[in-house]
Amino acid sequence: ITKKVLMLPGDGIGPEVMRQVQRVMDWMAKKRDVNFETTEGLIGGASIDAHNNPLTDETLAKAMAADAVLLGAVGGPKWDDIPFDIKPERGLLKIRKEMGLFANLRPALVFDALVGASTLKEDIVKGLDIMILRELTGGIYFGQPRGIEERDGVRFGFNTLVYSEPEVERIARVAFDMAMKRNKRMCSVDKANVLESTVLWREVVERVAKDFPEVEVSHMYVDNAAMQLVRNPKQFDVMVTTNMFGDILSDCAAMLTGSLGMLPSASLGAADDTGARKALYEPVHGSAPDIAGQDIANPLATILSFAMMLRYSFDMGDDATMIETAVQNVLKGGLRTADIMQPGMAKVSTTVMGEALINE
Amino acid sequence: ITKKVLMLPGDGIGPEVMRQVQRVMDWMAKKRDVNFETTEGLIGGASIDAHNNPLTDETLAKAMAADAVLLGAVGGPKWDDIPFDIKPERGLLKIRKEMGLFANLRPALVFDALVGASTLKEDIVKGLDIMILRELTGGIYFGQPRGIEERDGVRFGFNTLVYSEPEVERIARVAFDMAMKRNKRMCSVDKANVLESTVLWREVVERVAKDFPEVEVSHMYVDNAAMQLVRNPKQFDVMVTTNMFGDILSDCAAMLTGSLGMLPSASLGAADDTGARKALYEPVHGSAPDIAGQDIANPLATILSFAMMLRYSFDMGDDATMIETAVQNVLKGGLRTADIMQPGMAKVSTTVMGEALINE
Ligand SMILES: CC(C)[C@H](C(=O)O)[C@@H](O)C(=O)O
Ligand SMILES: CC(C)[C@H](C(=O)O)[C@@H](O)C(=O)O
Repeated sequence: ITKKVLMLPGDGIGPEVMRQVQRVMDWMAKKRDVNFETTEGLIGGASIDAHNNPLTDETLAKAMAADAVLLGAVGGPKWDDIPFDIKPERGLLKIRKEMGLFANLRPALVFDALVGASTLKEDIVKGLDIMILRELTGGIYFGQPRGIEERDGVRFGFNTLVYSEPEVERIARVAFDMAMKRNKRMCSVDKANVLESTVLWREVVERVAKDFPEVEVSHMYVDNAAMQLVRNPKQFDVMVTTNMFGDILSDCAAMLTGSLGMLPSASLGAADDTGARKALYEPVHGSAPDIAGQDIANPLATILSFAMMLRYSFDMGDDATMIETAVQNVLKGGLRTADIMQPGMAKVSTTVMGEALINE
Repeated sequence: ITKKVLMLPGDGIGPEVMRQVQRVMDWMAKKRDVNFETTEGLIGGASIDAHNNPLTDETLAKAMAADAVLLGAVGGPKWDDIPFDIKPERGLLKIRKEMGLFANLRPALVFDALVGASTLKEDIVKGLDIMILRELTGGIYFGQPRGIEERDGVRFGFNTLVYSEPEVERIARVAFDMAMKRNKRMCSVDKANVLESTVLWREVVERVAKDFPEVEVSHMYVDNAAMQLVRNPKQFDVMVTTNMFGDILSDCAAMLTGSLGMLPSASLGAADDTGARKALYEPVHGSAPDIAGQDIANPLATILSFAMMLRYSFDMGDDATMIETAVQNVLKGGLRTADIMQPGMAKVSTTVMGEALINE
C-alpha cells in the first residue's frame, strides 16, 4: 500500500525534527508492507517569506489531496510585526478550518523515565495518562462578528463564542468513542454557570452520553478543571472541551508532564463514506527559533505524532505501538536530548536520537 | 472612626468563617481607634431560599451604602437545578456589576509553613508571591448579545467577548500601580494572535505602560501563561488579564500554593472624588457544603480577606500587616485546620483557629 503524506516542516526546528521522521518512514518502507509517498509544502513563516501568505492555495490543495499531513511547527519572532491577517498562526488556523479538523487529540503522558522532569511531585504525576479532546474549528476562534470598531468615539474589540448543536455533538462523539477505548471516564469542561454557549454544550454532551451508558460522565467548570489538573491530574481519563478552553487546559496538562518535547497531537476531520478522515499531526512544542538549526532539538514529539498518524489515519495501531515502545526504550537506555537532559544520562543530538530510535 | 461593613455570609461554610472575622473585628474595636458598624445581608442560595432571588434590591442597597462588603461564599448542590437566571452565581455576578467592581485582586502566596502542601516541588513554589489582576465586570461574562437560539432548525449557543479601550485602561492602571508597589514587573496575558478583542487589550496595555516607565512589561499568550505558571511560577510578579482568562489562571495559580483555604481576594471599583472606592472582599475557596456546620473549615482566607479590606478600603495597612503576621505565627506555632493538616501538627477547629489568631 502507498500512503500519501504531506510534510509541512514550517519554521524554526520544524525542518530538522521532520527529517528524523522521514528516516523512520524510510525504515518502515523497507521493513513493512507500506510505502510513504511524501510531498513537501510551505506553511507559516516559511510561506510568508516565499509568498507573503502563511498558507497558499497550493499548499492547501496538497493537504486536501494527501492521506495525512505532518506538520513541524510555525512562527517565530521574525514574523512578530506582521499584520494580524497574515501572521504565521493564520496559516495554521486556516488549514484546520479548511480541512475541517474539528477534533484535536492532545495526550498528556508522563514517561516513566522522565517523571523527574515534572515540576510536580513524583506521586502526583507518575503514570499520568490523560487524553484531552479540544474542539478545533469552532468557538471563539472562528465566531463572527469579530474585529475592532469605533462607536461614539470609543474603540471596542470584540469576538463571538458560538457553538451549534451539531458541532458539539460531533466532538462529544469522538470523546466518548475515545473513552470507550480507554478507561471509560469522560469529563466535559465548560463554564455553564456563566456562558450560555456552554449551557448548550453541556446539554448536548449529556444527550450524547445516553448513547454511551458504559462511560462515566462528569462535568466540570473550566476554573475548577485548571485547579484539578494541578491538584490531582490522575483523576482524569478523557477530557473534552471548547477550542479556547482546550487551548489553555491542554497546554497546562502538557506542562504537568515536564517534557513538552515529548508530546504529539492529532487533528482529525469527520469520516467520509469510506471511513477515511482528513488529518494533521504535529508536535505540541513550538518552533523554538532560539535553538533552530543546531541539531539539538528533540525529535521524539514529531516521531510520536507520526505514530499517531499510523494509528488514526492508517489503521496501523501495532506499528504505532512499536514506535511508542521504541521511544520508551531509547529513554530507558539513557539517551536524552538537551530539553529532557538529566544528571547521569547521555546528551545526544537530534540526529543521534533519530538514529537510536531506528536501531531500536 | 466608624467603618460601615456589610457582612454577607452566604452559603455552606460562609457563616461560620464569617463569625471568626467578627471576633477579629470586635478585638480591633477594643484595641484600635476604629469601630466597625456591621450589618448583615443575604446573598446566593440563602437569598434564593428566602426571596427566590440570589441578590435582592435590599441587599444591593446595603452594599452600595457600606464602606466595604465582606462575603463568605455562595452556592451548593442544593441550588444546582435552579434555572440559569436565578442561580446563586447570578447574585455574585450582579453585585460585582452593580457595584462596578472591575478590579479583582487575586494574590497567590505560598506560606513558608505550608510549602509542603503544594503538589509542586518545594523549590518551584517556595516563596511564591504573585498578584493576579482580573478584569471583573466586562469581557465575555457580560457581553451582549448572548443566549441560545434556533436558526433554520439548528440550535446555537453564543456569547460575546467585548472590551472597550477605557475598560482595559482602568484595569491596566490598577495593575501598573500594583506593580510599582511590588517588584515592578507586570505581565499582561491575552490571546492577541487569535482574538481581536485582545489585540485591542494589548495595544491599550502598551499605551498605559508609557506612563510607568519603571515597570518592566511583558505580554504572554494565555496558553503559554498556563504553562509558565506550572513550569516556573516565580517568574511572575503582577499579572493582568481578562475576566475569563483571569478566572482560569487565578484558580490555577491558587492551586499551585496547595492551600486554597488560605487565599483571600479583593474586588475594587473606581475611586470617587473623595478617593473612596466600592469594594468587596471574599475568600477564594467555595462554600464547601460537605463540611458546612461542622466547625472544621479554615477561617484564615476570610480573615486575610478582612486584612485586605483594612489595607485597600480603610488605609490601615499596618493593621493588615499585623493580621498577616499573626496568621504566619499561628501556622508556625503548628496549628492547622483539617484542610491544611500535616503530620506532627495540631489539628484544630474553626473556632480554635479564630481564637488562636486573636491571641496572637
Ligand atoms: C498558534 C495558535 C494559533 C495555536 C492555537 O491557539 O490554537 C496554538 O496555541 C495551538 O494550540 O496549536
Ligand atoms: C461562581 C462564578 C460565577 C465565579 C466566576 O466565574 O467569576 C467564580 O468562579 C469566581 O471566580 O469568583
